[in-house]
Amino acid sequence: MNTTALEKVSLSIRALTMDAVQKANSGHPGLPMGAAELGALLYGEILRHDPADPAWADRDRFVLSAGHGSMFLYALLYLSGYRDMTIEDIKTFRQIGSRAAGHPEYGMAGGIEATSGPLGQGMAAAAGMAVAESMLAARFNTEKRKILDHYTYAFVGDGCLQEGVSAEASSLAGHLALGKLIVFYDSNKITIDGSTDLAFTEDTAKRYEAYGWQVLHGSMYNFEEIAELVARAKAETGKPSMIILSSVIGKGSPGKQNTADSHGAPLGEAEVAAAKAALGIPGDFYVHPEAFSYFQAKQGEWKKRREAWQGEFEAWSRENPDKRREWDAFYSGKAAPAAPPLFAPGDKAATRTAGNKALIAAAAANPNLVGGSADLKGPNAVGLPSGGIYSASNPSGRYIHFGIREFAMAAISNGIALHGGLRAFCATFMVFSDYLRPALRLSALMKQPVIYVFTHDSIFVGEDGPTHQPVEHLASFRAIPGLRVLRPADAEETVEAWAMAMERQDGPTVLALSRQNVTVFPKADPEWKNTIRTGAYVVTPPESAAPDVVIIATGSEVGLALEAAAKAEGKKVRVVSMISRELFESQPQAIRDAIVPPKVRAVCCEAGVRSGWERWAKPEDILSVEGFGVSGPAAKAAEHLGFTSAALAAIINR
Amino acid sequence: MNTTALEKVSLSIRALTMDAVQKANSGHPGLPMGAAELGALLYGEILRHDPADPAWADRDRFVLSAGHGSMFLYALLYLSGYRDMTIEDIKTFRQIGSRAAGHPEYGMAGGIEATSGPLGQGMAAAAGMAVAESMLAARFNTEKRKILDHYTYAFVGDGCLQEGVSAEASSLAGHLALGKLIVFYDSNKITIDGSTDLAFTEDTAKRYEAYGWQVLHGSMYNFEEIAELVARAKAETGKPSMIILSSVIGKGSPGKQNTADSHGAPLGEAEVAAAKAALGIPGDFYVHPEAFSYFQAKQGEWKKRREAWQGEFEAWSRENPDKRREWDAFYSGKAAPAAPPLFAPGDKAATRTAGNKALIAAAAANPNLVGGSADLKGPNAVGLPSGGIYSASNPSGRYIHFGIREFAMAAISNGIALHGGLRAFCATFMVFSDYLRPALRLSALMKQPVIYVFTHDSIFVGEDGPTHQPVEHLASFRAIPGLRVLRPADAEETVEAWAMAMERQDGPTVLALSRQNVTVFPKADPEWKNTIRTGAYVVTPPESAAPDVVIIATGSEVGLALEAAAKAEGKKVRVVSMISRELFESQPQAIRDAIVPPKVRAVCCEAGVRSGWERWAKPEDILSVEGFGVSGPAAKAAEHLGFTSAALAAIINR
Repeated sequence: MNTTALEKVSLSIRALTMDAVQKANSGHPGLPMGAAELGALLYGEILRHDPADPAWADRDRFVLSAGHGSMFLYALLYLSGYRDMTIEDIKTFRQIGSRAAGHPEYGMAGGIEATSGPLGQGMAAAAGMAVAESMLAARFNTEKRKILDHYTYAFVGDGCLQEGVSAEASSLAGHLALGKLIVFYDSNKITIDGSTDLAFTEDTAKRYEAYGWQVLHGSMYNFEEIAELVARAKAETGKPSMIILSSVIGKGSPGKQNTADSHGAPLGEAEVAAAKAALGIPGDFYVHPEAFSYFQAKQGEWKKRREAWQGEFEAWSRENPDKRREWDAFYSGKAAPAAPPLFAPGDKAATRTAGNKALIAAAAANPNLVGGSADLKGPNAVGLPSGGIYSASNPSGRYIHFGIREFAMAAISNGIALHGGLRAFCATFMVFSDYLRPALRLSALMKQPVIYVFTHDSIFVGEDGPTHQPVEHLASFRAIPGLRVLRPADAEETVEAWAMAMERQDGPTVLALSRQNVTVFPKADPEWKNTIRTGAYVVTPPESAAPDVVIIATGSEVGLALEAAAKAEGKKVRVVSMISRELFESQPQAIRDAIVPPKVRAVCCEAGVRSGWERWAKPEDILSVEGFGVSGPAAKAAEHLGFTSAALAAIINR
Repeated sequence: MNTTALEKVSLSIRALTMDAVQKANSGHPGLPMGAAELGALLYGEILRHDPADPAWADRDRFVLSAGHGSMFLYALLYLSGYRDMTIEDIKTFRQIGSRAAGHPEYGMAGGIEATSGPLGQGMAAAAGMAVAESMLAARFNTEKRKILDHYTYAFVGDGCLQEGVSAEASSLAGHLALGKLIVFYDSNKITIDGSTDLAFTEDTAKRYEAYGWQVLHGSMYNFEEIAELVARAKAETGKPSMIILSSVIGKGSPGKQNTADSHGAPLGEAEVAAAKAALGIPGDFYVHPEAFSYFQAKQGEWKKRREAWQGEFEAWSRENPDKRREWDAFYSGKAAPAAPPLFAPGDKAATRTAGNKALIAAAAANPNLVGGSADLKGPNAVGLPSGGIYSASNPSGRYIHFGIREFAMAAISNGIALHGGLRAFCATFMVFSDYLRPALRLSALMKQPVIYVFTHDSIFVGEDGPTHQPVEHLASFRAIPGLRVLRPADAEETVEAWAMAMERQDGPTVLALSRQNVTVFPKADPEWKNTIRTGAYVVTPPESAAPDVVIIATGSEVGLALEAAAKAEGKKVRVVSMISRELFESQPQAIRDAIVPPKVRAVCCEAGVRSGWERWAKPEDILSVEGFGVSGPAAKAAEHLGFTSAALAAIINR
């Protein structure tokens, strides 16, 4: 280990950080300056990676969970030779068009493995990547060749460890014995408000031992020690490891290090000058020549290592053509069509139940589909008949018992999706989507095709009452950019909804499914399975002339709309099932007009708040639920809330 | 201790539970049957309460965090003599109109201290109650008399302890040394999916020791032991205590106890019959006579204890008239008007900064206002100049460093509000409201007037980028029934917004505040401080005739609207500041029409998704942000996203 060179790398990280933040007049110098030594060692000596191929399937993953310290990552990507990250990006840190955005954003540059910034989630995503690695390794590795054999590293700060999501993920990671997950805890004892003593005095090491982790201690500023700790972490194959490195935030800034002042604001020109003088940094955006030459010398070694893997991979492909075909399918980014379960008009089934059949079909056609529920396998109806339960002793299991940890479940699912090779689904009651909403947002922001199965999707939950009856959730999902919300109306639509979710590659999908039985209704449009992909289709038979009223309904309310339509007095009523409002709203005008004709009175019906439906109907023409629900049998609850086909018919006949 | 009677109480809890769940054909018998002994002891011997006065200020609090076991609570309220809870309620468990709703709902019956059901939050609320008790005790108790001196108990299950919110709250509770918080952990090792071994194998006791708790162990079925453990918990005044009671879920059901089958579904008639036979229960909704007589005999003792407190309280009132006046103000449920900070047109200030001035004024006028931020005291601008930091050594401190624990912060704030006597506020970046959304929902459902200060309320956050720029959040807040969202447009409006938040007693308020400076604009309406309480008012001078266009804007976009109005070409433009859309929408037609005249073209402008604005304007007449934000200086980010006064002017002039 060339510690002299590593020191120069550390120096260069500090130099780039100070200047980038100062030039942007915005940013967080404290973390990159405080943890520069780890960064140097990590990118130089620890990570199995090749900057020339950031997509290498068997690379080690590194997630900067404490994403505010983004300059740590950018400086290292630049120094170690990731081509996407240039000195121009760093000089335009936090400016529009720069790949060096305020927080790391997945997709902006190779080497950014996850969008981070919302604290704690990066750690959970890393756990998801480690899960994915073990699943894929179990499936593809042979006794002769280990095609997948990499580590997942995460970098967390005090903030990440205070967040509940990291607690959930860590408890589960310990349970799952994720031996190839290694977390560096940058313990600098400073947060925005000041000393961690203000709010965070627990014994974190002991807590992690309680989770079943190996906990190791060291100094941020001792290369040999960190390397040795990493070796010990790797040697412990039955537990995730946390390496606690005591550090000094903003190290190198003589006037601000070890204070909250260095956390999240530029040091100021005078302090930058003082730091440069103290550290011996001769100019702006300085990189020490030895830092460059150190990483330049590494390129050949890295290339050789990756090429050796490539050779292994090709040999493995020749020896295992079936596995190779499966590998290609896994990494194709495409879902195979499922053999859909068949339903017929008149069948009664909750859409969650139909959803399980569709899930099982999708899983049979796509062996890379994995997932589970937050302790609601039965109620969510997401059991898988084959593959078994994922665990340390059965890493090829495809069903994950996430425990009662909705947020970690979703963040881990993001990690599984980000890893590549697998599709992830996760499930809970719709009302508890609130618990995982921050991860749902990150799925959308990172364009990850995670499938969220949210059952018990309205007041028709019934007896469990308002704490378990979503009313605002559909509206709040639709507000998230890039999230597709599908609320199928019966078992047949549910099959299509699952297919649509599997087809989607560029973002997450919510499947909003009913607890209660709904009856499969006849569909007049012979092309409905195509038309539904516009987000809506006409359920009722074509009218002889323009309809008088169009009822737009979603999910279980389409059945209610059909009932109400039958009560219409002397009016031609068209019923439209709008499985995805936002998808429909994105269609060209002509398509929209064909389904919901302009200038025809529209009436909307959905068992949730009306927000957003005002685009389609006047407030008085929307049957909605504007308050919280009520505890009682579903039909009685609906009646109590005035949410019935009679009420809808009264609107139509008004 | 009359253990024979306590056994009869336990038997009666089991009997009532089985029958209520069976009759409802819905519910969770496992917890009440498994923990009946603790319930008997708690309500008979441990709690300092008086069922005749459930509002007694110095009662012990008990929160059933595992709210699905609601029959535990209902049976005990009924047996111990809370008048609100009748046998009729229990016989109509989970039916509309019954106080025995599916999950405990705050406000439905005396003795229900919190709405629970969403797991983990009850534990955090209990921590909040313990915080409130210590704050009020520090303020009101004298050396001579302890007017406030009660414990807070919580009942948690495996689910509560897997949720991240309980982890956050417990870490903070340990830090705050909440010695009067006592948590019973019903460790039955069964969840819905089956054995906790499926997903939850951590060493929970060790984890709680790591948080700085006292951890005690015992059996659920040994009255003397539990009583002794509670005594030890009380004796440890410097730490919260967790009492882990090993138990058997569904105990008493010969065929289903110790299995997930007893968790959340009726036992079935045959099994109920078998259980009754095994337990010696002779009929339906059976209460053993000794259970009744035991609690009847308690009434006098309880009354005497409460009356003794009343006597103390009156003596204390005579001795401390100033404190008594303050007490009355604290418990009045009314906020005193603040001496508002003054701003003038032309002043430039971020609304968060103006918010801090208003908060300080509100806190000066209302010494019962307490709160804090999730490690963003400075950025959220919620520092308080007086009172100091709340801690074990300074329990009269009014500022709480919640740490980087948004969810626990909000759930604890709910607990503070529920306790009575205090008003609570809490703060974070608006985008991280996602982390606490489940508690925000419970604030609304429980009608608790918690004030949520959410700063950095739009893409104008700038450099931190899309992970820190809310776009969907205003829409998603407005979807929550009963939540009031106030987005003031300048410093003057911010002062009114804080006043409106303080005035509100029957539900939570979100204050959406800007990071960036906005300029105080002149207000033509001399009554604007009244008119704004309708949710909106006209900013611009009265027009000579009907305006051609009305721009409806909120928050920092009102300034942008005024700029755009100045660019209108030959059109009379009215600018309306709509500080609260849902409040405005709840006004009578005449008021709405006076501010936004019908049949006049309306243009809406808000830096977030347009969902909900379609009620007021056509999609093409809404200037919104339909995708995620971008990292860059605020003005450049807005320009990049097409969100400028020029773009708004172009819409107006179209």
